[in-house]
This record gives sequence, structure tokens and C-alpha cells, in this order.
Amino acid sequence: MPKVTIAKNILAANDTSAQEIQKSLVQRGIRTINVMSSPGAGKTTLLEQTIERLHGQLGIGVIEGDIETSVDAERIEAAGAETVQINTRGACHLEAHMIRDALDQIDLSRIKLLFIENIGNLVCPAAWNLGEDIRVVVISTAEGDEKPAKYPQMFAISQVMIVNKLDLLPYVDYDLEKVKRQALAINPALRIFEMSCRTGAGLDTWCEWLIAFTHGESEIATSANRKAFS
Amino acid sequence: MPKVTIAKNILAANDTSAQEIQKSLVQRGIRTINVMSSPGAGKTTLLEQTIERLHGQLGIGVIEGDIETSVDAERIEAAGAETVQINTRGACHLEAHMIRDALDQIDLSRIKLLFIENIGNLVCPAAWNLGEDIRVVVISTAEGDEKPAKYPQMFAISQVMIVNKLDLLPYVDYDLEKVKRQALAINPALRIFEMSCRTGAGLDTWCEWLIAFTHGESEIATSANRKAFS
Repeated sequence: MPKVTIAKNILAANDTSAQEIQKSLVQRGIRTINVMSSPGAGKTTLLEQTIERLHGQLGIGVIEGDIETSVDAERIEAAGAETVQINTRGACHLEAHMIRDALDQIDLSRIKLLFIENIGNLVCPAAWNLGEDIRVVVISTAEGDEKPAKYPQMFAISQVMIVNKLDLLPYVDYDLEKVKRQALAINPALRIFEMSCRTGAGLDTWCEWLIAFTHGESEIATSANRKAFS
Repeated sequence: MPKVTIAKNILAANDTSAQEIQKSLVQRGIRTINVMSSPGAGKTTLLEQTIERLHGQLGIGVIEGDIETSVDAERIEAAGAETVQINTRGACHLEAHMIRDALDQIDLSRIKLLFIENIGNLVCPAAWNLGEDIRVVVISTAEGDEKPAKYPQMFAISQVMIVNKLDLLPYVDYDLEKVKRQALAINPALRIFEMSCRTGAGLDTWCEWLIAFTHGESEIATSANRKAFS
């Protein structure tokens, strides 16, 4: 089965690159978060709102992954973060070598917290380490309430789950408690935040947690206890 | 570059299987639609509502693709269609050999219209022919209004775009006309339906079109003019 062997080799090579990236970022005192979700769950708006709130308190950088276009990177840059765009030209996930190239184009001396916004995809990004300390999966109340059960790998490898678009709850059929139960059954250590990036609800709690995380004071440690993809 | 060559060989082998499937389905007088979207755009609810409306008028079969769980297949079966579940156990898209195996488990003599519900993923399924006559991409008003520009391949290879969750328009920032312009710039032949599978708005028009399509009377012909993935 040569194709399976090759796929494993590619993932192993990616893991090696990811470890080098992580080591380098940790040495510089930078915390890194890989943000993943379905298309349209609200990753970019989350980062935009987060950056606006933390501007002046924390040096924030963003590596912005998109298949095509730079519309998201432009929004993030306007919000006040150091931003680098990666366009994958068709690829469904970011890989470590793309992050390495992006880091060459960013002034790391000004950054304490680095976000990597992955491609909108609830499946493939879960398999690719990028050198991050933690992974955040964003889901929205407009997406249906079976996501953790149907896409378990993403929830198994994440440390944080954000449920976004709480403002739409009155208009959709969404059992929030069921979703949380599903997610915690897959990953009991998952830290859950509920918010609406449109109204701002829940964002202050998230930003306070981010500051603690960046200063090494959150209950989620750094990469030491990060689950490896198996 | 061995990995590129191997990837091309895998896609070529998939295309060969897809052609065989298509030939066999065409010979039986069955029209086949590959339904794709992000997670949670509403594929399953669309099929559920469609089957309930067309029950007794058209023999409908569904091949239901999911990474894990059979919750969607159970909903579809309850709506009244012949249903086969495919669980990909981690894979991010359906492939032709999975469809071939699924077809062995379904009574095709009772079917005129076959839906294949792909994995929730706006990227990878676009590369894999399944033997379908046409492809339908479903997007929702809760997903943000940049989807065609950001995921162009999916819109380039589809013949139909459904904009779902029209009922949420008053509660989200979504420029429907912009989305339609984006999609038509990528694929001017795209047939667009607007609907709410929750309220039922637009479903009758879609179902009338499906009946015409199944009888070979729609403006979209069968596989003869289907765009091949390149």
C-alpha cells in the first residue's frame, strides 16, 4: 500500500517542521493558537473583535490562511494586528512549511500572541500540526447541533471550543446543551466559550482568558500537554 | 515529484470508476445529483424536505456520506427514501469506489432520482467525481457572503447553487446580490435557487425543477456538459 506509507511520511515530515516552528516561537516567548472551523463559522470576525479589544495590551500577530483572496487579511490588518496572508491555491488546510515561510515575513519582536487562521474546513486541518501551542475550534449556532458527533477528530485534538453566533439562537433549531455534552464526551478537557462576535456577548470573558493564557496563567498549559495527532 | 504523480494517478483511477458508475446509472434511467456544502449549510434538511414533497411522484434514493454517525441517514430514511449510509471514518470526501459499493446495497429498480450527500466540506469533494450527472452546492446566509470568492473551485464545478436559510437574512450581515454576482462571475451557467428549508420558502420551485430535471426537461442537460475537474 505505497500511498498510505507516503501519506504517513508526509505527515511525519510536517510534524518535524511543526516542532521546529514551535521551539522557535516558545524561545521568543510567543504563544500560538491555531483557529479552525467550518467555512463561515466566524473565525475572522472573532479575530477582528479580539484584536480590537486587546490592541495596546498585547502584541498580536495573525497568519491568515485562505484558498484564494486576501479579504480576511485586509480585515485583520485594519483591526490592528501584524498580518501575513497565505493563499493555498486550492489546498484544503495549512501545513507547517507554509507557516515557516510566513514567519519569515513578520516582525516577531512585537508579538506575544500569534493566531493562525486555518482554511475553513472541519476535517483536514485536524491532521496537520503547525507548531501551535493550542487549537481552538469555532462552531456556530447556525450550523446544526450535531457537529462534534459528526466531526469528532476536530474536537478531540482541540483544547478550546467556541460556540459563536449566540444571537441567532432564537431563530434556529439548536440545542446548545446537547452540543456541549457531545463535545465533552469526545474531549472532557475542552474549555468552552459561548459568544456572539456580532453583538460582542462573551468576548470580554474570552479576551481575559487570552491574556491569562499569553502570560502562562490559564488552566490550559502550553504545548507540553498538547495532544499529538495519531 | 512523486507525490504529485501519485495524486494524479489516484484522481485518474477515481475518474475511471466514476465513468463506469455513471454509465450504469444512465442505462437504468437514473439521474444522479452530488450535493455538497460546508458542514451545517443544510444538505440533510434540504433532502428531507425534498423527499417529503416528492414522495409518491418520484422514486428517490439517497447515498448518505458522513465521517461518523448515521443520524442523517436515519432522518432521510424516515422521510421516505431508499437510503444507504457511507461512513468514511475520517476521510474528508466521498470517492467513486464508495459509491460503487453503496449502489450494491440499494434496490435501483425503484429509483429515478439519486442524491449523493457528500461530506460537509467546501474544498475536497470538488476534486472527486462520483458518477453524478450534476453537482449542487448549498450555501447558507449564516455563513458569510464571501463563500464563492473564497472557495471558487466548488462553484466552478457545480451546475446548481442553492442559497439556504433565507429566513435568517434579517438577523445576519449577508449581501445576497453580492454572493450571486460572485458565483456567476466564476460560473455564468450556474442555476441559482433561493430557499429556506426551515420555513419551506422556495422549495416548491426547486421540486418542480427537480421533476423536470429527472424527466430530462430542464435547461441543464445531463453529464454530456458536465465540467470535468482539471
